[in-house]
Amino acid sequence: MRKIGVVDTTFSRVDMASPVIEVIKSRISDAKIVRYTVPGIKDIPVAAKKLIEEEGCDIVITLGWVGKTLTDKLSYLALSIGLINVQLMTNKHVIDVTVHEDEAESEEELYKIAIDRSRKHAENLVELLMRGREALTKKAGKGIRQGYPDVGPIRE
Amino acid sequence: MRKIGVVDTTFSRVDMASPVIEVIKSRISDAKIVRYTVPGIKDIPVAAKKLIEEEGCDIVITLGWVGKTLTDKLSYLALSIGLINVQLMTNKHVIDVTVHEDEAESEEELYKIAIDRSRKHAENLVELLMRGREALTKKAGKGIRQGYPDVGPIRE
Amino acid sequence: MRKIGVVDTTFSRVDMASPVIEVIKSRISDAKIVRYTVPGIKDIPVAAKKLIEEEGCDIVITLGWVGKTLTDKLSYLALSIGLINVQLMTNKHVIDVTVHEDEAESEEELYKIAIDRSRKHAENLVELLMRGREALTKKAGKGIRQGYPDVGPIRE
Amino acid sequence: MRKIGVVDTTFSRVDMASPVIEVIKSRISDAKIVRYTVPGIKDIPVAAKKLIEEEGCDIVITLGWVGKTLTDKLSYLALSIGLINVQLMTNKHVIDVTVHEDEAESEEELYKIAIDRSRKHAENLVELLMRGREALTKKAGKGIRQGYPDVGPIRE
Amino acid sequence: MRKIGVVDTTFSRVDMASPVIEVIKSRISDAKIVRYTVPGIKDIPVAAKKLIEEEGCDIVITLGWVGKTLTDKLSYLALSIGLINVQLMTNKHVIDVTVHEDEAESEEELYKIAIDRSRKHAENLVELLMRGREALTKKAGKGIRQGYPDVGPIRE
Repeated sequence: MRKIGVVDTTFSRVDMASPVIEVIKSRISDAKIVRYTVPGIKDIPVAAKKLIEEEGCDIVITLGWVGKTLTDKLSYLALSIGLINVQLMTNKHVIDVTVHEDEAESEEELYKIAIDRSRKHAENLVELLMRGREALTKKAGKGIRQGYPDVGPIRE
Repeated sequence: MRKIGVVDTTFSRVDMASPVIEVIKSRISDAKIVRYTVPGIKDIPVAAKKLIEEEGCDIVITLGWVGKTLTDKLSYLALSIGLINVQLMTNKHVIDVTVHEDEAESEEELYKIAIDRSRKHAENLVELLMRGREALTKKAGKGIRQGYPDVGPIRE
Repeated sequence: MRKIGVVDTTFSRVDMASPVIEVIKSRISDAKIVRYTVPGIKDIPVAAKKLIEEEGCDIVITLGWVGKTLTDKLSYLALSIGLINVQLMTNKHVIDVTVHEDEAESEEELYKIAIDRSRKHAENLVELLMRGREALTKKAGKGIRQGYPDVGPIRE
Repeated sequence: MRKIGVVDTTFSRVDMASPVIEVIKSRISDAKIVRYTVPGIKDIPVAAKKLIEEEGCDIVITLGWVGKTLTDKLSYLALSIGLINVQLMTNKHVIDVTVHEDEAESEEELYKIAIDRSRKHAENLVELLMRGREALTKKAGKGIRQGYPDVGPIRE
Repeated sequence: MRKIGVVDTTFSRVDMASPVIEVIKSRISDAKIVRYTVPGIKDIPVAAKKLIEEEGCDIVITLGWVGKTLTDKLSYLALSIGLINVQLMTNKHVIDVTVHEDEAESEEELYKIAIDRSRKHAENLVELLMRGREALTKKAGKGIRQGYPDVGPIRE
C-alpha cells in the first residue's frame, strides 16, 4: 500500500484536492490518501513534513493559492524555500502546486488553471512514485506545462 | 492541559495578544497560555522555538507588525523563512499572524484588520490543536480570509 | 556574572558599541562585555555564534550599517536570515540593530538614529536577559520604536 | 568507475541532457550516467540529493529552465538556495545550469544558449571531477562564459 | 603553520587571487595557501566548506564577480546566504569579496575596485586570523571601505 499526503488550504479559492485525489485513486488502486488542511501557504511545509515523518507518507502533494501583493510573493518564496527544505530533510518528493492570482484576469480562467495544474501534477506524482527517477525522462525538455497547454520543445 | 505559546512585539501598534487569549480561553477550558514579548519581528522565531522546546508548548501563535519600507518587507521575508524553519525543527505548528502597514489607508482600518485576523487565526489554532489535521478540511478551497471578509470559492 | 556579546563592524559610520556598552554597564553591575569587530554585515552572524558557543555569552547584540543599493539590501536580507539561524541553532537571543543609509537625508540625522536605536535596543537586551520572556509584555502592542520617537498604539 | 548524476525537467523547452551526456562520455570512458527527470526547477534539489546519497553519484549536473515572470524568478532563487544547501549537506559539487527565458528574444537564440551552456558546464564538471580543485585555476579571472562567448579578462 | 583557503571563479573578469595571495604571504611568513577555482559564484559555498573540512583551512577568502541582471542579483543573494551557512556550520570566518558589474561605468574602474577590495579584505583576513576578535576594534564605526576610499565616521 502506498501512502500519499495531500495538503491544502482554507485560503485557496478552488478545491484542488478533489481532482488530485481522483487522479491518484484512478491510477493507484491501493493508494491511501492522508489529508492535511491548513490556513495558508506558510503553514504548508510543516504539514508536509508531518505527513512524511508522523503518518509515513511516501510522497506529498501540496496545493497552495497565492495572492497578488508583494507580501504574497514573499510568502510564496518562503513557502518554496521551506518545501525544498522538507524534501532535503526527508529525501522524499513534495510536489508543490501553486496558483497565483496574477496569472489570469478572470475567475473562470483561474479556476481552469487550478484544476488543470492539480490534475497534471497528480499525474506527475503518480509517475515519480510508481516508476521512479526515469519515469518522466521521455518528456524531458519537451516544454510540458501544468495549468496551460504544453508549449513544446524548441526545434533546432 | 494544553500549553499554548503567544509571541508578540513592542513594535506592534495594536495589542493582538488580548483577542487571541480571549478566543483560546473561551474555547479550551484548561488552556495554559505562555507569553513571550520581543522588540520586533526578527526576534520572534527564537521566542517561538524557546516556547516549544523550553516551555513545552504544543503550538504557538505569533503576532507581528510590518512597516511599509522595502527594509520592512525584507525583514518580513526573514521572519517567514525563520518561522517555517522553527516548525520544521520541532514538527509543531506556529500560526504566523502579521499585519502590514500597507494594507490600509487609515489607522482605524488597520486596527480592525489586526483584531479580526488575530481572532480568526486563534480559532484556526484551536482547531488544529484540538481536532488535528482534518479539522479545517471542510473549509478547504473556500476562500477563507483573516483580517477581511471571506472571498469565497470560485464556482465552476 | 553575565556575559554579553557585542558585535560591530568597521563599515559602520557611527560607533554604536559605546552607547550599547554604557547602557549595559549602567544597568548590570557584574556584566562582562565580550567584543567582536568584523568588516561588514555579512561577517556578523558567525561572530555572534562564536561569542555564544566559544565565549559563553548569554546574549548578543549586533550593530550593522547598511548602504543604499539593491546589493546592500540583499546583503541585509542574508544577514537577517543568518542571525535568525544563529538564534535557532543556539536558543539564545541576538538583538539585531541595523541602521540603513536610506533612512535619513542628512548625516546628522543618521547619527541620531544610530545612537538612539543602539541605546534603546541595549535596554531591550537588558530586559530580556535579566527579567525574561514577559519583561517587555507591558509594552506589547504599544508602537515602541528605536531610532525614532514611539508612534504609540492605535486606539480603538 | 565514476557515477555522475544528471537532473533535468519536463518544463524545459530544450533537451539539455543529451549534449551533457555526450560531453561526459567523450571525456570519461568509464563514466556511469544516472538520470533523474522531474517536472520543474523546484523539484530539482531533492533529486540531486537522492542521486548523491541513494545512487552514490560523485557529482551532479542539473538542467533548469526558468520562465519570465516574477514568480519564476523567485522559484529560481529558491532553487539556487536549495542546490547550495544540497552541496553543503553532501560536500559534493552540483553544477547548476539554468536557462532564463528573458535572456533572448528569439527561440533560436534560447536554443543556442541552452546547448552551449550545457556543453561548457559539462566540461567544467569533468574538470572538477577528474582533476580537482585547481583544475580550473588556469582560467580563473578570465571572464569565461557559458551560453555566450567568453568576455575575457579586463586588462590593467 | 596557517592554512588559508582562496576560492575564485572563471567567471570573474579580474584575477583577484593574486593580490590576495601577495598580501597574505607578505604578512604571514608560514602561510600555506590552498586554492580552489570554480565556474561561478553559486559554486563557491561548497568549495569554501570543503577547504575548511577536507583541507583543514583555518579561514577562507572567496572572490566573486556578479553581473548586472536581476538573475545575477538573485544568485548573489543565494551565494550570500550560502556563505553565511558555511560559517555557521564550521564556526570559521569566510571573508566574502564580491565585485558587482553595476558598481562602475568603465572596465578600468571595475578593475581598480576589484584589486583594491581584494587587497583590503586580505588584510582583514590576516587581522582576524592572527589577532582575533578585537583585532579590528580600533577601526569599528570608522566608515572603512573596500574597493573605494574610506568614507570615515560621522561626527556628532
